[in-house]
Amino acid sequence: MIFDDAYFMREAIKEAEKAVEAGEVPVGAVMVYNDKIVARAHNQTELLNDVTAHAEILCITSVSASTGNKFLEDYSMYVTLEPCAMCAGAISWSRIGKLVFGASDQKAGFSNYSSDILHPKTALVSGVEAVRCSAILTEFFKERRRKI
Amino acid sequence: MIFDDAYFMREAIKEAEKAVEAGEVPVGAVMVYNDKIVARAHNQTELLNDVTAHAEILCITSVSASTGNKFLEDYSMYVTLEPCAMCAGAISWSRIGKLVFGASDQKAGFSNYSSDILHPKTALVSGVEAVRCSAILTEFFKERRRKI
Repeated sequence: MIFDDAYFMREAIKEAEKAVEAGEVPVGAVMVYNDKIVARAHNQTELLNDVTAHAEILCITSVSASTGNKFLEDYSMYVTLEPCAMCAGAISWSRIGKLVFGASDQKAGFSNYSSDILHPKTALVSGVEAVRCSAILTEFFKERRRKI
Repeated sequence: MIFDDAYFMREAIKEAEKAVEAGEVPVGAVMVYNDKIVARAHNQTELLNDVTAHAEILCITSVSASTGNKFLEDYSMYVTLEPCAMCAGAISWSRIGKLVFGASDQKAGFSNYSSDILHPKTALVSGVEAVRCSAILTEFFKERRRKI
């Protein structure tokens, strides 16, 4: 098994697929430390009735709660969709070492506002498994429109 | 008693003063519905060991948890410091009707990145009781440097 960016992104995609089943906007994330997944989450804004319950925020608070560390320089986050401004801000405050996202978000992605929202020390990789990450979202919204 | 912006900002300042006592960066917020304060919070990143535990996020999640509403169009938020990108993003997702902040944040305030992070329907008022809001922060950091 090669633990590369594509491997961990596929694990984040598995989280996004769980979101589909739960009727949540399908975005998934995993947090990685020393090539091990230490947190997994998908968007739970509906279940938790909380606009802040994005996959990225849930991963960050989960790791901080379990480790006692607020600052996560040694962690990498993999998320299927480009983080929004809120999540990019949280990623910045937590000083995550590396952020890898799949699909770009032309509407709400942080880079539509400013790439400087991220911490300058956070390494950024984008476009990993982007087609699959994007397809899950497209299919979800197509299905939802069909039901309305 | 006149329930104007200055009145509610002074209530947010009381929250910031509680943060000082707790050794937290002193930012306070209150959430107002129909001229009544329905949530109050101060920054608790140290206590909760959570970079996302800013006063604004705590107010939003508190109101959503207590009312069952994720979307807060009829609420006004008063916060002593200009929200960061993370909080502005959360304020945007929650569609808060009116945001009033005190002191500007030249370093981490959302307007350093983009004013478009806020929802276009959120009314924005800034500079209310700004001198007092700012003085609490200045004094806190001066004291902290003295202790180091």
